[in-house]
Amino acid sequence: MADLRVALAQVDTCVGDLDGNAALVLARTRQAAAAGARLVVFPEMTLTGYPIEDLALRASFRRAAWAAAADVAAQLAAEGLGGTAVVLGTVGTAGNPRGAGAAEREASGSPRDLPTNRAVVLRDGAVQAAYDKHHLPNYGVFDEFRIFAPGETTTVVEVAGRRVGIAICEDIWQEGGPVAEMATLDEAGNGLDLLAVLNGSPYEEGKGHVRTDLAARRAREVDAPVAYVNLVGGQDDLVFDGGSFVLDRAGDVVARAPRFVEDLLVWDLPDDGAAPRGPVSPELHADEEVYRACVAGLAGYVRKNGFRSVALGLSGGIDSALTATMAADAIGGSNVVGVSMPSTYSSEHSKDDAADLAKRLGADYRVQPIAPMVAAFQDQMSLDGVAEENLQARVRGVVLMAISNREGHLVIAPGNKSELATGYATIYDAGSIGGFAPLKDVDKSRVWQLARWRNDKALDAGEIPPIPESSITKPPSAELRPGQTDQDSLPPYDLLDEVLDAYIEHAEGRAELLARGFDPDVVDKVVTLVDRAEWKRRQYPPGPKVTALAFGRDRRLPITSRWREPLD
Amino acid sequence: MADLRVALAQVDTCVGDLDGNAALVLARTRQAAAAGARLVVFPEMTLTGYPIEDLALRASFRRAAWAAAADVAAQLAAEGLGGTAVVLGTVGTAGNPRGAGAAEREASGSPRDLPTNRAVVLRDGAVQAAYDKHHLPNYGVFDEFRIFAPGETTTVVEVAGRRVGIAICEDIWQEGGPVAEMATLDEAGNGLDLLAVLNGSPYEEGKGHVRTDLAARRAREVDAPVAYVNLVGGQDDLVFDGGSFVLDRAGDVVARAPRFVEDLLVWDLPDDGAAPRGPVSPELHADEEVYRACVAGLAGYVRKNGFRSVALGLSGGIDSALTATMAADAIGGSNVVGVSMPSTYSSEHSKDDAADLAKRLGADYRVQPIAPMVAAFQDQMSLDGVAEENLQARVRGVVLMAISNREGHLVIAPGNKSELATGYATIYDAGSIGGFAPLKDVDKSRVWQLARWRNDKALDAGEIPPIPESSITKPPSAELRPGQTDQDSLPPYDLLDEVLDAYIEHAEGRAELLARGFDPDVVDKVVTLVDRAEWKRRQYPPGPKVTALAFGRDRRLPITSRWREPLD
Repeated sequence: MADLRVALAQVDTCVGDLDGNAALVLARTRQAAAAGARLVVFPEMTLTGYPIEDLALRASFRRAAWAAAADVAAQLAAEGLGGTAVVLGTVGTAGNPRGAGAAEREASGSPRDLPTNRAVVLRDGAVQAAYDKHHLPNYGVFDEFRIFAPGETTTVVEVAGRRVGIAICEDIWQEGGPVAEMATLDEAGNGLDLLAVLNGSPYEEGKGHVRTDLAARRAREVDAPVAYVNLVGGQDDLVFDGGSFVLDRAGDVVARAPRFVEDLLVWDLPDDGAAPRGPVSPELHADEEVYRACVAGLAGYVRKNGFRSVALGLSGGIDSALTATMAADAIGGSNVVGVSMPSTYSSEHSKDDAADLAKRLGADYRVQPIAPMVAAFQDQMSLDGVAEENLQARVRGVVLMAISNREGHLVIAPGNKSELATGYATIYDAGSIGGFAPLKDVDKSRVWQLARWRNDKALDAGEIPPIPESSITKPPSAELRPGQTDQDSLPPYDLLDEVLDAYIEHAEGRAELLARGFDPDVVDKVVTLVDRAEWKRRQYPPGPKVTALAFGRDRRLPITSRWREPLD
Repeated sequence: MADLRVALAQVDTCVGDLDGNAALVLARTRQAAAAGARLVVFPEMTLTGYPIEDLALRASFRRAAWAAAADVAAQLAAEGLGGTAVVLGTVGTAGNPRGAGAAEREASGSPRDLPTNRAVVLRDGAVQAAYDKHHLPNYGVFDEFRIFAPGETTTVVEVAGRRVGIAICEDIWQEGGPVAEMATLDEAGNGLDLLAVLNGSPYEEGKGHVRTDLAARRAREVDAPVAYVNLVGGQDDLVFDGGSFVLDRAGDVVARAPRFVEDLLVWDLPDDGAAPRGPVSPELHADEEVYRACVAGLAGYVRKNGFRSVALGLSGGIDSALTATMAADAIGGSNVVGVSMPSTYSSEHSKDDAADLAKRLGADYRVQPIAPMVAAFQDQMSLDGVAEENLQARVRGVVLMAISNREGHLVIAPGNKSELATGYATIYDAGSIGGFAPLKDVDKSRVWQLARWRNDKALDAGEIPPIPESSITKPPSAELRPGQTDQDSLPPYDLLDEVLDAYIEHAEGRAELLARGFDPDVVDKVVTLVDRAEWKRRQYPPGPKVTALAFGRDRRLPITSRWREPLD
């Protein structure tokens, strides 16, 4: 038997865009077939996009997705590509009652029956086989038990004489699932020749190794190579980082696609199972990984929401500078509108830094002083204290939204995770207003690191560093009062971010924080700020979500909660 | 054996407020014991409040909840009430691995083990027994499979010689669950004498009958009376309507608590099982039911978020008039701040109607013209078209938020469901800005009905109707342009609301809508408006959620989605 050429199609789908996703499948299959591949594997829920949440429960959407799968199969056959086996993901049919009492549960709002999270095999102009995901994750960002019924059988298809088993994402994260079943030999005494895994595995820092370790365990379990195909690109508040890979039967990486970009990874499954090495993309530096995840998230959000440009306030500070730089990297500097909105408290150097930044990025730069509008409100309302500070911030928000309405830009928010978590941002202000906050998952300490990394990268390439040095080095300030700096009301950011990490990411309590050796005053200060900010944010649901874990692993907390970490 | 006096304590808990909830339990137990009750049953998750969402995953919260249960038991004993059996709900202990691969799943963000949704029996100063909910709903507003592990055993406790079985909410919605197990006789040949069900069953229109029908089936199944205790009060975007009841062994209602208010329903379980009738509260008229649900939702949101007053814009239109009236009914007219914010396009009669309404309600009435602030923006920015319309609406939002900051009111939004669903509200404007929108689940046709019902109720009581007649009768208009009315851009509301109901509530597609006989032009118009509004709202996550089904049964849709109902 000859080697079987396999293509891993790492594509950037869009939720609900059946036509666009079908076009991606056709284009990549043509490319794979031209390269001699007999088998092309796409990521989880290719045609529908992922995650589709409650769209799964709309029958007209499911019907359209099924028509799209049939159309793709027919189109490939019409082009003479029917002999190429295409494995892709979509939504399955409904009609899968889950548990007893379905009719009663429907009366209480539960759908009577649920569709599945399905992989299909297209060949010879038709949908030839299907596999329904067994293990439905329902934790962190995942809500699949809500919308899908689990599959119960395994699917092995023959491609060019090889037995290819199919699994979907969470299936390989659980012991004793469908992979264990496929590890047993068939009636003729044959095992698997390849395990193909379709994934929609969201980015988290350092997750790459967890994926390869798990997949290696499955490779050894089925005693066959594993082709792990991951989704790529930003989708809502998630980022999929790609990095698809092939492991040999011993679990060693023999081919790997790059991360954060689309790719077609082609690899030959040899006759004897002794897997040859394909291209292996290098690992990324930690700062580059996070920076590119932010850029991918923003690029996806802008494009998939139908925008071509963004607008944001430029204060001269580090957060808006880094956000604007990420935007320029995502969609080009000429598609970034930076608006300086000085108040009477804004320093000259802030305005200079904002102008300097915009020039370096090639951004469209505007200056819109807010003093006249603030004065108009103050003539009528005579606000002081926090109400006055918030007024300035909100007038900036109205200016940005007006520019967005007039010119069609997406307004983006520069708020970082430390600031959002501690409530150091005004509800409906220019720091938190907007459709997307690229730094929502990046704490302030990391903001400085990423700015330095980005500037160093430019220097290495002989380019002008995008971020003005003084934006990086000056003490952070919201400039809502004369002489105000963040450290007037917050602990130093390096310490703050350590406590935030333990309290938010790891859900530790005060007792655990003290046991780590943090100063009790600092702990109480941070816990109080976070609880208060969380409470305020939930009272006014608008405003960017603060995700409890990196990149969209949002804890869905109740809006009203009186629970406060006990402070003794 | 003497009759067993049972008390159903229908209380209004608050999520996370362990101290406050414990105080409710103590107060109601004292009252029940004074009335001679030997058994007091509270609603689901009494001590923690319900639903706690991801608070369940915070260990320090679980520890505090357990301490609270022990404290309540000790306090009751210290007061000489240790002999009264108290059944209440709380969060169970963690340490319940769900499925294999727990360690690997933790690496992907899944908690290693999960707590339970628990009922405990307090007696003689201690937690004497515990029952863990078997069936964890994970549809509609429920996300329990995400945060809880299911229980696996049944719990029957003896109280004054009677065998009392315990179940929690969803347990009775499923066939073949713990109730079926408890229907079998014990070793001594005894069945249950009473089934006590702790519930957190959110309000939906007409749901009362579904509950009694289901509970009646369980009564016949165990051949014993059922005491169904429901939570009451607004919690976040849910409303719990109370209406706790007792059924005899044949499934007939023999006692019922009123709805939307706290209550202690006392009833005697007779020796022979021939259940006597207790107090049976009358059913409510459909409009009264919906009106009171809105008021309960708002009252709970205000109080549980620590506010004592609300502020809203009064336009003279029906939506803000009804919203202000609900607010006055919820927290008293003197705690309502109504702000008239006329623009150059506002009619005189609008301002008169707003002032008239405020006077009838006894509300704090302010007039804050927006022309000077709008002019200040326009001098700088020269906006026109939609950008100009939105500017007016957003300036109103800034005025309201400034008043809120200065004086501490919660800003509430008057947007109704039809308007929010079709996008007839501006992002960040006075109609959609705010922490809570009491009419979010009420379509426009119903808005008029509720206004009429409320005025008629006043007339019946010999009071002045709160809502000016002209606010009810005049054609609805946003007054953002001269002569503008809603029907310039929308189908008539009665037709619109019918299509919205089918398209949103029932998730029907275009084909199903046409099959119902709706005009294709109307269908396409409405579908396009809803899809566009949904898309816009998701681009800018701020703004009130539009719930797909009544009272918070939110469909959790992806933010970015290109799916549009195909229009041929």
